[in-house]
Amino acid sequence: MKPNLNHRSNEPNCKGVEILSIGTELLLGNIVNTNAQWISEELSALGLNHFRQSTIGDNSKRISNLIKEISLRSDLLITTGGLGPTPDDLTTEAIAKSFNVTLYERESLWDEIKKKLSLSSSIQNNSSLKKQCFFPKDAQIIHNPRGTAPGMIWKPKKGFTILTFPGVPSEMKVMWKETAIDYIQKNFSDGYIFFSNTLNFSGIGESKVSEKIDNLLKLKNPTVAPYANLGELKLRITARATNELQAKNLIKPVKEELKKEFSKFIFGEDNETLSSVLIKELLKRKESLGFAESCTGGLLSSTITKVSGSSQVFKGSIISYSNELKQSLLNIPEDRIKKYGAVSEEIAQDMTINAREKLNSDWSIAISGIAGPSGGSKEKPVGIVYISIAGPNNHITNIKKIFSSTRNRVEIQRLSVNVCLNSLRLILLSKSK
Amino acid sequence: MKPNLNHRSNEPNCKGVEILSIGTELLLGNIVNTNAQWISEELSALGLNHFRQSTIGDNSKRISNLIKEISLRSDLLITTGGLGPTPDDLTTEAIAKSFNVTLYERESLWDEIKKKLSLSSSIQNNSSLKKQCFFPKDAQIIHNPRGTAPGMIWKPKKGFTILTFPGVPSEMKVMWKETAIDYIQKNFSDGYIFFSNTLNFSGIGESKVSEKIDNLLKLKNPTVAPYANLGELKLRITARATNELQAKNLIKPVKEELKKEFSKFIFGEDNETLSSVLIKELLKRKESLGFAESCTGGLLSSTITKVSGSSQVFKGSIISYSNELKQSLLNIPEDRIKKYGAVSEEIAQDMTINAREKLNSDWSIAISGIAGPSGGSKEKPVGIVYISIAGPNNHITNIKKIFSSTRNRVEIQRLSVNVCLNSLRLILLSKSK
Repeated sequence: MKPNLNHRSNEPNCKGVEILSIGTELLLGNIVNTNAQWISEELSALGLNHFRQSTIGDNSKRISNLIKEISLRSDLLITTGGLGPTPDDLTTEAIAKSFNVTLYERESLWDEIKKKLSLSSSIQNNSSLKKQCFFPKDAQIIHNPRGTAPGMIWKPKKGFTILTFPGVPSEMKVMWKETAIDYIQKNFSDGYIFFSNTLNFSGIGESKVSEKIDNLLKLKNPTVAPYANLGELKLRITARATNELQAKNLIKPVKEELKKEFSKFIFGEDNETLSSVLIKELLKRKESLGFAESCTGGLLSSTITKVSGSSQVFKGSIISYSNELKQSLLNIPEDRIKKYGAVSEEIAQDMTINAREKLNSDWSIAISGIAGPSGGSKEKPVGIVYISIAGPNNHITNIKKIFSSTRNRVEIQRLSVNVCLNSLRLILLSKSK
Repeated sequence: MKPNLNHRSNEPNCKGVEILSIGTELLLGNIVNTNAQWISEELSALGLNHFRQSTIGDNSKRISNLIKEISLRSDLLITTGGLGPTPDDLTTEAIAKSFNVTLYERESLWDEIKKKLSLSSSIQNNSSLKKQCFFPKDAQIIHNPRGTAPGMIWKPKKGFTILTFPGVPSEMKVMWKETAIDYIQKNFSDGYIFFSNTLNFSGIGESKVSEKIDNLLKLKNPTVAPYANLGELKLRITARATNELQAKNLIKPVKEELKKEFSKFIFGEDNETLSSVLIKELLKRKESLGFAESCTGGLLSSTITKVSGSSQVFKGSIISYSNELKQSLLNIPEDRIKKYGAVSEEIAQDMTINAREKLNSDWSIAISGIAGPSGGSKEKPVGIVYISIAGPNNHITNIKKIFSSTRNRVEIQRLSVNVCLNSLRLILLSKSK
């Protein structure tokens, strides 16, 4: 299911934007093209009519031909890659060739590079680094605060502009933010922006949500689009408007309808995660948290401690991966483990009760299961997981989950962590303080 | 630095392969195009001359025009996306339009879909699902064992073949493996394959390695190319040959030279990780492992327990995130924490010694540091990390690291984990049993 973009066809000011990713490593599949995704998102936010992307290797003639081709159908081209000092960095040269233009050295850029690399001023003039200082005469330089390779803004002919960026994502992104956004807004914006607001779901699948909001998925402005990934579901509401306030007003009624329909499944918005929402709620309640992990082996703890500020509510965990440690660190009697098995509701509950005491936390979550690929049996297959949550006033919740046998080890661990965090979130919701 | 692919220009049998990714969500930047990367890797392994990729939205006319364009310059096109039942799934229709061909229903496919979805046989004939059963008369179906949308192999004109796949990665991949590889090998291979072997480095940076192997980076067959990512470095050696054995023979001398030059920095090959190598070595030595984590908050444990079989050497961990738990679970006296600070060599060493005892493991690693963004001071800035490793015969190694202030919280955690694992690996190497 994808957002409807028909409303874009009304834009008059911009024939279209394209992205060209340059680098043989992309064609070999050695790296994933995250640059194209990042720039696409930025272009969406700027409200631009971006309709095509290409990827090509480090071959001067092919790059040159492709750029000529693009200049006939689009008015703005963003390139990434091929700006460095090595022989296979050919972008600027190839662009110049497309328009039969000569490159000239910018002495000030050479001084900058020498300074950045702390090179002696007597470094030979034929250094391969010098290549990065050659640009068409009338190109505007995009300075690179994170590396040596600058980019350019160049208008080789009427109605066609090229912006070049290095392939290194951190360099490209800072150059985009410091230079490109402003330039593009001034020269290519039709006065409209796209603004998005995302609702994050847990505990419900894409098909169930889509079924219930068929009407919303057909909207034109704002559009509503679901994105699902390993137990997580997001609905992105995107409005086209002349400013952020107007966009927010378009989004508001749709958001309210969704929140009403799916109240307990929506845990947060935009960049909020299950962890960050849980930490915020516990902070508000002045309650603390600790874990006893077996099959997730530290992933639950790590998911919480990724969040800055988690130390204010998270005390720590006992990763009792072996049965020996379930006994010695969590005081679970050997005969109980023998009787019920380490992967059982009984032992998960023992783990959470004892962890809560040992960690001196208000809440504790324990998890024991079989992440696979081996260790499963007919009664307890790979993918079975027991979760037990203990809290104030003798609160205990026990949860049993069996994840699909098509899930691999890491997926089962990640899905389990989601269930742990969402279950505690729902318990806290039902026990408002 | 990228591999030199000049040797590909000798290939006579195949004008070239292109990949076309179809989906407005790609142009909006909502998802990263991992499909193109995965297929690129597969094409490389098949030794095909793949020189261009494109991405386009769900717009029938644009898709159709682009496919016509591609059919003039390439002989094989792989498409992903747009095969489903929704109105914006337009791929098959658009392809047919490019060559003025009519689509016909395949009744057997409709039966299959109904069976897959357990639909009653009386489902209406105008169901949107039915769209997935229409193909050009002479197209060969690529069956989809994971979903409802089949793909096709179709030769609309002499010298041009299209293979279509759904955009869902798991469906695309299994269809590729079960049907496409065979077909492509039979019809497009020139008898050469590409075969790669990757060496994985830890503890050394890309620039240091590249400097020393300037000669190898210039090789044509095999090629040598470095890939760096957050403290990890890989060198991929790729050979073009008529079979795997020949390729391995081309790779062997280069690999040996690299292993000699960087012996202690190379920890493994291909899919081996620091964790998997460490687990293998401990298994061989019949020694066990446990952790006491503070600033990494479970990430070190989780990195080990991602690996299947880790339970054979990993006993568990104490995540003593709060100082309170450093006292209660790891028996570190309050006055020592006050005297040295929780982030110090002294406390890291206390943590590892006591963890080794509590966890009853042969080896233990403790880590305490400041992952940020807050909590730093002039003496102990964000990015400072103390690691202490304890082992048999009173072995103690203490390590202090200060990661760059440009690193964020999660990067500092991940880099710290790498240092922990690589340090223990080096200790084990020096103490061969």
